[in-house]
Amino acid sequence: MPIGEEQHNESATGMLRGRSIIGFGRGKGNGVAFHAFDPQTGQACEPAFTSANAEEIDHAIELAATAAPKWARASGTTRAEFLRAIASRLETIAARLIERAHLETALPMARLKGELARTCDQLRLFADVVQEGSWVMGRIDRGDPKRTPTPKPDIRSMLRPLGPVVVFGASNFPLAFSVAGGDSASAWASGNPVIVKAHPAHPGTSELVGRAISESVHSCGLAEGLFSLLFDGGVTVGQTLVEHPLVKGVGFTGSYAGGRTLMDLAASRLEPIPVFAEMGSVNPVFILPGALEARGEHIVSGLYESFTLGGGQFCTKPGLVFLPEGRASEKLMRSLEALVSAAAPFSLLTTGIRTAFVRAREDRRRCADLRTVIAELNDWSHNSLQVGATLMETDVTTFLSRSELSEEMFGPSTLLVTHSDKAQLIEVASMLKGHLTATVHGTEQDFQEFFELIQTLETKVGRLIFNGYPTGVEVCHAMVHGGPYPATSDGRSTSVGTQSIFRFSRPVCFQDCPHQLLPAELRDENPLGICRMVDGAMTREGIAESR
Amino acid sequence: MPIGEEQHNESATGMLRGRSIIGFGRGKGNGVAFHAFDPQTGQACEPAFTSANAEEIDHAIELAATAAPKWARASGTTRAEFLRAIASRLETIAARLIERAHLETALPMARLKGELARTCDQLRLFADVVQEGSWVMGRIDRGDPKRTPTPKPDIRSMLRPLGPVVVFGASNFPLAFSVAGGDSASAWASGNPVIVKAHPAHPGTSELVGRAISESVHSCGLAEGLFSLLFDGGVTVGQTLVEHPLVKGVGFTGSYAGGRTLMDLAASRLEPIPVFAEMGSVNPVFILPGALEARGEHIVSGLYESFTLGGGQFCTKPGLVFLPEGRASEKLMRSLEALVSAAAPFSLLTTGIRTAFVRAREDRRRCADLRTVIAELNDWSHNSLQVGATLMETDVTTFLSRSELSEEMFGPSTLLVTHSDKAQLIEVASMLKGHLTATVHGTEQDFQEFFELIQTLETKVGRLIFNGYPTGVEVCHAMVHGGPYPATSDGRSTSVGTQSIFRFSRPVCFQDCPHQLLPAELRDENPLGICRMVDGAMTREGIAESR
Repeated sequence: MPIGEEQHNESATGMLRGRSIIGFGRGKGNGVAFHAFDPQTGQACEPAFTSANAEEIDHAIELAATAAPKWARASGTTRAEFLRAIASRLETIAARLIERAHLETALPMARLKGELARTCDQLRLFADVVQEGSWVMGRIDRGDPKRTPTPKPDIRSMLRPLGPVVVFGASNFPLAFSVAGGDSASAWASGNPVIVKAHPAHPGTSELVGRAISESVHSCGLAEGLFSLLFDGGVTVGQTLVEHPLVKGVGFTGSYAGGRTLMDLAASRLEPIPVFAEMGSVNPVFILPGALEARGEHIVSGLYESFTLGGGQFCTKPGLVFLPEGRASEKLMRSLEALVSAAAPFSLLTTGIRTAFVRAREDRRRCADLRTVIAELNDWSHNSLQVGATLMETDVTTFLSRSELSEEMFGPSTLLVTHSDKAQLIEVASMLKGHLTATVHGTEQDFQEFFELIQTLETKVGRLIFNGYPTGVEVCHAMVHGGPYPATSDGRSTSVGTQSIFRFSRPVCFQDCPHQLLPAELRDENPLGICRMVDGAMTREGIAESR
Repeated sequence: MPIGEEQHNESATGMLRGRSIIGFGRGKGNGVAFHAFDPQTGQACEPAFTSANAEEIDHAIELAATAAPKWARASGTTRAEFLRAIASRLETIAARLIERAHLETALPMARLKGELARTCDQLRLFADVVQEGSWVMGRIDRGDPKRTPTPKPDIRSMLRPLGPVVVFGASNFPLAFSVAGGDSASAWASGNPVIVKAHPAHPGTSELVGRAISESVHSCGLAEGLFSLLFDGGVTVGQTLVEHPLVKGVGFTGSYAGGRTLMDLAASRLEPIPVFAEMGSVNPVFILPGALEARGEHIVSGLYESFTLGGGQFCTKPGLVFLPEGRASEKLMRSLEALVSAAAPFSLLTTGIRTAFVRAREDRRRCADLRTVIAELNDWSHNSLQVGATLMETDVTTFLSRSELSEEMFGPSTLLVTHSDKAQLIEVASMLKGHLTATVHGTEQDFQEFFELIQTLETKVGRLIFNGYPTGVEVCHAMVHGGPYPATSDGRSTSVGTQSIFRFSRPVCFQDCPHQLLPAELRDENPLGICRMVDGAMTREGIAESR
């Protein structure tokens, strides 16, 4: 299915076609149509999209497997050019892309503009990392033919790609965690072809991004199997992809139920494969007594902003706030209550998210020892996905006695939990499951006094935040957007920042390899000038002729 | 259960007690006894050992969980001292240890002496790595409060331990992959307490090593929960350990069946945990035409040595050799046949291993298109675990038609497979599953001509060997003793070499963390002088005061 020139320039002007992108071609689909919905009106958005059929799934995977060996050996420069080409094309179609994403998600235009910038910055950051090249963790242990009793072999290792990777687009980040998001960028950067299963809530946005990627593959002269985009209104496509023997890794951002299903599918394969599922968390916040006294009002406004940002639909939303009982807390809670009561309604992304949010809130309202404040919806209409901001309050005893209060509630809500003393606080912290983040507000004296709390929290999360808020995940080298299960499927990974590149790679070593067969990263002279470990010491120097 | 001074000096002289080591105390066991067996005579070795009971398992895990937070914050120097103390104590009891290991395994004294040296070198290599400290992958992205539209936070990340790790001793390496072997060393090095489930084939060796470790914990003034050693004649202890909520990771070296069982157990936990199971492989060897012509005889003797080393009971045994059909191959096969026919018998480690070997050999002998040569056993006796070296020959067509020929056969055997042409060779290579190693013998011209083969093999293994043999796994920084499933449970890891330390750790980041709360590895001034990534560049320099 070769693609014509016309198709390669379709992204800026062409109509959406509602068909999967299979390499350089388009699928016909399985005949079953689905639509995106405008969350502000509940109306279906044109055009209709059709789910990929079984042959198209197979074809996309086979193209990816065919493209894999060459992409695995592509230089860092070639990979960087590709990532930068995607970023440039996305910027070219920015206006149309943001307009469509706004239609499908109702996320504010400014937020979507920021998310696009972040997506492009992310692609370019990965481009810089792979062009520089040191990320491969090159290691050289030189041989010694004279060693007794056995000669010492020459051993050289570096990270190599896994093979075709399947990425699931997330509903809440139609750009940064979707078709050209962090999972795709990191998988490509480490040398893997990518097949994206588009999220059905923003298929038009996905198609626009998918076209830009497919055109970038073409314009860079790369193999078409480097990228395919499959649509599905249901779950068949995703399941088939994860079970396919040629697929070697999975990236996912979404619900716990969805992530756990993929984990179980991947673990029960004849050849189990790694699944990197970021499944969200409740992101506990701890307000310590000194900070509460010194700047309670300041914390209130930051907290409110953080838990309502993006309608509270961030996996880093602070959904749980621990604070000491007493007058200072009372004051903080009343200030927060005032902000919540006065809040304008928030649009949620999908009917499913709204239904789950409202149901969870009703469940909690039935809890006798939990107080709930909900902003009124003045302009509530039956088609709308709007909800009012929600504040809940209880104490540690009630919190510990009702396990549902520890569950994530996706939407603009948070739960305040008061504790009676430090021992109770440390007890409840030690009982927390894995989360993406924990946040501590404290003074210098608080931190001294509550050092045990900080140590406990470190074992529970991927990111520990001091005197700040968990929303806003910086895309940088040191970011860890991960955390122990159930926050993610694999607490040894991050899905944001350049360390996410490690997920889709594995170490391979070459023993006594003839020099001309070695990857450039491992050659004596260090032609790429990368940082390597040579005989145990880090260096950018080449080594003397070893054979 | 405090241990007296007498017990702390028991390792060199004290009798074996046959009881689990729980921190500084000893278990009573569950009343069910089991024995080690001398493979040379089939006689039971004294004393009787008793399996740990349920309370002892719980107690060992609770001690480990209690020890975890402090060990997680122990300096690299403290961890290094502990690892070196173990090595020194093992050397002190070397004579007794090797004697007991020889009794329980029938492995030659020279081999056991070498294995002990390797075990101690390995502990010291890990000590060097953690004392130097750069292994933690420290990364610092400095903040910028003036950035618009949002201030840039200060983010710092490093690798942190997982928590209590369970290690299963392997039958075939009673020292290097057992109680104080690579899994334990790497887990301690990265800051985790270790609970070892002793392999029932060498419990006496395990007890001697276990005492030395327990004494090292005590002499270094560390928490007793850092180490426990549990005995079991069956599978209950291992299963209970892997299912326990406080256990956070598993290391295993052994059979595919055993490894897969642990993987499935760990994946079905409420909180799934990583299992690093090294399950062995067939380690294909490819003899290319030029090498066959130029040095066929030389390759024959190396190959024979490699597949019979240690009675063929290495996970790196070359169990499959591909070579082009024709006169040169015929000659090589006849030479190998002569070596095999004249070979003295080999002692296997356990009844189970011998039974599986003999059964697999009988199955293969029933295959019409497979020729088998077996060394005669002149002094075969009914109690013995001896077997004769075995050579099998077939062609690619037969090999591909019978899946059992791709399975590992643990013992002194190898299967030669002739192919008709290059296309057939590349086809069969592309159909291989994951292996620990692949080996290619070739001339410079061979490597040019068969480059596609080499590229294919790279995707199948953790280590690619040129003009050598897969047995002999160098313990160094660049070693990768891993490989895609089913060679291991996680092809993204190695169980030998200093990169194995990464398995039992995970990245954690600190956002805007007050300087006095940061781990030393992440402080501005870089007090440990480690190599870190600062704003994307590797450096050992400290950074200017950031706040």
